[in-house]
Amino acid sequence: MSFFSGLLASVFERSHRKAISDKAEGHTTNELCRQLLSSHGEVSGSTLARLILDRYSAMDVSEKQAFFEFMTHSLEIDPQAVQNTLTAYGDAPSKKTYRAFAQACEPQRQELARRLNQVPGGTGQLVAMRKDLLSMLRDQPALEPLDVDFQHLFTSWFNRGFLVLRPINWSSPANILEKIIAYEAVHAIDSWDDLRRRVQPADRRCFGFFHPAMQDEPLIFVEVALTKGTPNSVQALLADGRNAINAEDADTAVFYSISNCQAGLAGISFGNSLIKQVVADLSRDLPGLKTFVTLSPIPGLNKWRATANPKTAAEADQTAIAAHYLLEAKRPDGIPFDPVARFHLGNGAMVHAVHAGADLSPNGMRQSSGVMVNYLYDLSQISKNHELFVGEKTVVASAEVRALSASCGLEV
Amino acid sequence: MSFFSGLLASVFERSHRKAISDKAEGHTTNELCRQLLSSHGEVSGSTLARLILDRYSAMDVSEKQAFFEFMTHSLEIDPQAVQNTLTAYGDAPSKKTYRAFAQACEPQRQELARRLNQVPGGTGQLVAMRKDLLSMLRDQPALEPLDVDFQHLFTSWFNRGFLVLRPINWSSPANILEKIIAYEAVHAIDSWDDLRRRVQPADRRCFGFFHPAMQDEPLIFVEVALTKGTPNSVQALLADGRNAINAEDADTAVFYSISNCQAGLAGISFGNSLIKQVVADLSRDLPGLKTFVTLSPIPGLNKWRATANPKTAAEADQTAIAAHYLLEAKRPDGIPFDPVARFHLGNGAMVHAVHAGADLSPNGMRQSSGVMVNYLYDLSQISKNHELFVGEKTVVASAEVRALSASCGLEV
Amino acid sequence: MSFFSGLLASVFERSHRKAISDKAEGHTTNELCRQLLSSHGEVSGSTLARLILDRYSAMDVSEKQAFFEFMTHSLEIDPQAVQNTLTAYGDAPSKKTYRAFAQACEPQRQELARRLNQVPGGTGQLVAMRKDLLSMLRDQPALEPLDVDFQHLFTSWFNRGFLVLRPINWSSPANILEKIIAYEAVHAIDSWDDLRRRVQPADRRCFGFFHPAMQDEPLIFVEVALTKGTPNSVQALLADGRNAINAEDADTAVFYSISNCQAGLAGISFGNSLIKQVVADLSRDLPGLKTFVTLSPIPGLNKWRATANPKTAAEADQTAIAAHYLLEAKRPDGIPFDPVARFHLGNGAMVHAVHAGADLSPNGMRQSSGVMVNYLYDLSQISKNHELFVGEKTVVASAEVRALSASCGLEV
Amino acid sequence: MSFFSGLLASVFERSHRKAISDKAEGHTTNELCRQLLSSHGEVSGSTLARLILDRYSAMDVSEKQAFFEFMTHSLEIDPQAVQNTLTAYGDAPSKKTYRAFAQACEPQRQELARRLNQVPGGTGQLVAMRKDLLSMLRDQPALEPLDVDFQHLFTSWFNRGFLVLRPINWSSPANILEKIIAYEAVHAIDSWDDLRRRVQPADRRCFGFFHPAMQDEPLIFVEVALTKGTPNSVQALLADGRNAINAEDADTAVFYSISNCQAGLAGISFGNSLIKQVVADLSRDLPGLKTFVTLSPIPGLNKWRATANPKTAAEADQTAIAAHYLLEAKRPDGIPFDPVARFHLGNGAMVHAVHAGADLSPNGMRQSSGVMVNYLYDLSQISKNHELFVGEKTVVASAEVRALSASCGLEV
Repeated sequence: MSFFSGLLASVFERSHRKAISDKAEGHTTNELCRQLLSSHGEVSGSTLARLILDRYSAMDVSEKQAFFEFMTHSLEIDPQAVQNTLTAYGDAPSKKTYRAFAQACEPQRQELARRLNQVPGGTGQLVAMRKDLLSMLRDQPALEPLDVDFQHLFTSWFNRGFLVLRPINWSSPANILEKIIAYEAVHAIDSWDDLRRRVQPADRRCFGFFHPAMQDEPLIFVEVALTKGTPNSVQALLADGRNAINAEDADTAVFYSISNCQAGLAGISFGNSLIKQVVADLSRDLPGLKTFVTLSPIPGLNKWRATANPKTAAEADQTAIAAHYLLEAKRPDGIPFDPVARFHLGNGAMVHAVHAGADLSPNGMRQSSGVMVNYLYDLSQISKNHELFVGEKTVVASAEVRALSASCGLEV
Repeated sequence: MSFFSGLLASVFERSHRKAISDKAEGHTTNELCRQLLSSHGEVSGSTLARLILDRYSAMDVSEKQAFFEFMTHSLEIDPQAVQNTLTAYGDAPSKKTYRAFAQACEPQRQELARRLNQVPGGTGQLVAMRKDLLSMLRDQPALEPLDVDFQHLFTSWFNRGFLVLRPINWSSPANILEKIIAYEAVHAIDSWDDLRRRVQPADRRCFGFFHPAMQDEPLIFVEVALTKGTPNSVQALLADGRNAINAEDADTAVFYSISNCQAGLAGISFGNSLIKQVVADLSRDLPGLKTFVTLSPIPGLNKWRATANPKTAAEADQTAIAAHYLLEAKRPDGIPFDPVARFHLGNGAMVHAVHAGADLSPNGMRQSSGVMVNYLYDLSQISKNHELFVGEKTVVASAEVRALSASCGLEV
Repeated sequence: MSFFSGLLASVFERSHRKAISDKAEGHTTNELCRQLLSSHGEVSGSTLARLILDRYSAMDVSEKQAFFEFMTHSLEIDPQAVQNTLTAYGDAPSKKTYRAFAQACEPQRQELARRLNQVPGGTGQLVAMRKDLLSMLRDQPALEPLDVDFQHLFTSWFNRGFLVLRPINWSSPANILEKIIAYEAVHAIDSWDDLRRRVQPADRRCFGFFHPAMQDEPLIFVEVALTKGTPNSVQALLADGRNAINAEDADTAVFYSISNCQAGLAGISFGNSLIKQVVADLSRDLPGLKTFVTLSPIPGLNKWRATANPKTAAEADQTAIAAHYLLEAKRPDGIPFDPVARFHLGNGAMVHAVHAGADLSPNGMRQSSGVMVNYLYDLSQISKNHELFVGEKTVVASAEVRALSASCGLEV
Repeated sequence: MSFFSGLLASVFERSHRKAISDKAEGHTTNELCRQLLSSHGEVSGSTLARLILDRYSAMDVSEKQAFFEFMTHSLEIDPQAVQNTLTAYGDAPSKKTYRAFAQACEPQRQELARRLNQVPGGTGQLVAMRKDLLSMLRDQPALEPLDVDFQHLFTSWFNRGFLVLRPINWSSPANILEKIIAYEAVHAIDSWDDLRRRVQPADRRCFGFFHPAMQDEPLIFVEVALTKGTPNSVQALLADGRNAINAEDADTAVFYSISNCQAGLAGISFGNSLIKQVVADLSRDLPGLKTFVTLSPIPGLNKWRATANPKTAAEADQTAIAAHYLLEAKRPDGIPFDPVARFHLGNGAMVHAVHAGADLSPNGMRQSSGVMVNYLYDLSQISKNHELFVGEKTVVASAEVRALSASCGLEV
């Protein structure tokens, strides 16, 4: 069906839309927003929403900023109303008083976003709108409350219960696959042939989360290699011309790349759920898999060395320093410096092994002199690991890695 | 796949769940809820959510009431925190102060519902939970604020942009069709053969809205007959043994039954969107269709006559009284008494024609002595009609119906 | 899409068809068939085929008989041409001479059937045509060669490689399910509720073979119960109100009913493939299943007793007689009398156990005084069993059944 | 599901297959074929078929040739049996005698192919087998009868009624799209970006025929451009950077490339059905389309000029010569020289217009000095055109083209 979708706007719809569009002429977008928020907008709501989103798409940066200022300041809460309804609710809790309070607390821009969301494609356009907003926040901090509202809405709309896990492979639609090429953030995919090497062989898998209202847009995806034993080099893993093994013969699933796709969904976390779901699905389908590990970059290693300037024992090799960094280099709040470490440790994984010469790409050399790390997802331990990390800020690591860290002679 | 779904809980998942389930033993459901709300619940979140929903399902009425009281009172806002964060935000608006305010205003029970929603099937179970709550509200008005929160969340989750319109016909899954039989609220379907007469003939259509997270559950559906000319009898429309016409030969689409399916979604309105979408789709697929009308009951007619006891002109016939009722019988706020009239007029339809002997079923005789009404959806007029109705409380009607109403000699 | 299928005949198609249809008027169906067979029919082939099939549908029995006589006699081989081309091919084998021979050997009615098959729905209509033919053969044996050709074509078209195995359950389309009700030939399904008991519980399965050109028509289906242990009563198996078990807890899959659906496909065998495929699929999805048996009727038992009038030992009970019948009662060619036995033994199954009181329905009492039999599909043995049965006419049975048979004191 | 397909061979299947495979060891492939043809092969048929196809895949060219010789000569008809059964059928026509005759006429290699076809993927492997065969026929004409049988079977299996028309667009699976790149035979597609320009813009369409047993393999596909007016240059049509128009605004559909995909299906014609079906579908979906034309190469033009060496009038331009060639250059049997002309004229199209400078690619210059031709599919005329062409060998052309041809002063 999708390719005749241009036809879906029937003659009727077009004439109906035209009537409202004509009427809208001469009104500002802000006026249309107010109309959409009024009860008078009920019947013509979806057409109004369509018009507003179309106008937004055509705006330049300064117009968009003005639109965001309208949303932030003109559709803001009324502090006095919050005050009054809070008192009334405290005095006499009831449906009526609580609803009045709830409405007073919620700025109208949230309702506006919900009404814009009623048209096909609206969800994606609102996500794109937030992307625009995020790019302005540094210079326009006054718009931050608007972003808080977007994040609040998106957290609700992109609830795990609404997401769908879909395998991505060489039988997937090309318009999905081209997005995998575009969004791969860890190890760049440089051509369709390169993509094919990631998703077609019998020992490769890729999975993404999708939202039903954005069917063609992956939200996040993970690339998986099925291997015998734990790998210690991403170039070997991705080598052109390597021989694939049978999936049934693999004992290890390696998560070697996780990429978020939607800048407009920054702060809405999917990675933890994705990994756990993929582990569960792979376990069911390939009972031979016993070990689930990542092969992860250490993006902060060299930057930390440059700034912290640690004194290392003379004989300390690169992997020992990396082990030390992962286990001991902390922010003032006691949480690891390394962002990738924070992500996996927060998910309940543990530091499993550290490998030299594991990523010889320019980027890998620059950020960590080629060292990479395996984080292990041991399903019987992740709850305990997670609690230790969140509760006591303990970084759980294998004995081997702990020994390696100790060997480098660095003070904590 | 669906029928092996029992297998989807893989060996791993089951052992993981068992570990958490064992640990949960000895804790009350309320404690589990608090744990789910804590950051410690992140990793084991979906298992905790599953456990809580399972426990809820096994509760008796008084336990459910206690659970709702916990949600209402223990997961309530803190007025002092609202106060303080409101002041702080007013003093220095920023991401941080606004987020603090937004969090203070939102009771934790909303976040609890979002977290319960992360498991497969969670959405449907939360809708069922609200159904339980609604049945208690009359006797337990103190629980009303909880219902306000449910309604707020559901309005966001069941946004028009997330709903999918699906045709329902004799090729639809039996588990969907049995729900059509169960939920038909206007003209009961008494058997599968009766159902088949509603959805299989070439001149019959049925459409429903579905939510992606509740794939097997229609939210609302409408039954449509394609006819030549406007019908004046529902029994004729549904007669067993009648001859179907070709869809291409029809000039009129008759919406003769609209049924909401989910008691737990009371107050979330879908009917307006459904009718407009179906009109648009039918217009596109069957260009011969020129007229879109309902054939609707007048549920409040006889009740109004009994209570208002209007003095009618001696010669006034039943249809004249019905016309008068539809046009003139108003609530104190100026809106029509009749609930079906309120729905269609609010959608922008107009009162088109009134028919005697149109519903001879016991129910039709009881509520309106067999009189029914056509509401007309004239797409070029619905915006104007809607504005007149909402803005000025004007009931738009055909000249014929206005004349009929005038003829009965009743004072307004 | 399917329900707007009436629209698929576009304006163009209709006008194109009309032109050909007008031209066809005044020609007999037989003339249209000859035209379809000529090269001039190439462009208008599908329209001609449509017309011929439409005309056939409207024929009464005697017209159909005349049509079959036309196909049998007028589209017959030319013996002289066979002779000549055979000689020419023998003298000088080449593409040209072999093709000439092949064409001479094949009556034109086969090509006619292939050309009729080119329109949507044609396959199903040809299957229905053969059903008509089969019902005439007893009285019109001269039409038998035509049936040989139908069978030849259908064997090719309904090749196992073209069939699709689909699960049938309570989520299947109602138009498929109503055919299960209609076609169930072993234990009648008397209502939709009865059907639901066969396909919805967690311990029930149903699978059918479908052909891509007849998507809504099952060709054959099998009903399966998942049980603990081997069942000995079909009424217990199908009891209303029984408690379902979890599929994962079952150790046995019981094939308690296999029904062919298409009379027009008589002689095209699907049952063997169906059972083996279902065994393979269930083994994969439910590793707990260890035993695959039938619970089968013994349709010929009482008829055989009445005609063969065997002298039984005084103490012989009903099950012993049944065991004896299954193992020893043979046709003159040495193959068992019992048709169900022939089917399963031919598939490589063995006689596993015999149960009294296993089918207390009127039909079960009439045909076998309530006795039923389990045939066992032991996958490590079926090739060997099959070869013994086909090669040496040996009926493989369990020691228990052999002892039972011996106990009845009947002479072979 | 498809990507776990490696799992579909369950543990059971693998052990079952292993048993048969072990037993097969020590037997030649020819022996396995005879076993598959015997009744003893019934139960283990699909495993035997799998084994034979696997062995075939591993054969080198000379082994394949030996296998084809086995099929051709060892599984040949028995002329004496044909003779005898023909006589017996003539003497006493019956089911039995006709069946005997039909079996005697059909060499066992046909039944072998049908039995090989019963395994998943078998159809595609048999098509590939014929491709191998075709490549040997020039040197091994004795194998030609085998090819006649393949063609006979494939004509039946790939009957129009079993084919499915599917749109191919940028949402199609990548494994389908890469085949479009590989198989495009008219205007080469040199990259994924080039492919995207053919299938993604709003004014482009592509459709292919597929067979249900070869889901990932297009059999034939056509590329369509939607335009305003008839195009006269394929480079303009395919220009990178051109602006797409709305599909609804187009009045013309241009078939600018038709490619067969399966060498193993040579001689099985799909093009005629494909074009007619696409015309019907486009007419229905885009009522604005009034003209359906090709923009076709004239592959034989320059070759004909070189060999026929026609004397042209001094002033004859290239288009006039092309028009003359299309209308007048015939083979001894009176049919046009040009193969593309034969295809479209045979379908009922007419020669509509001739354009100079229409294909400036090296290939276009070489074969026709850049001249191309539009064939017009006028649906009200195609039956008549077809009959004129097939019956009287008349090439129907527009007055304009006829005048152009006359202008060149060449004798016929």
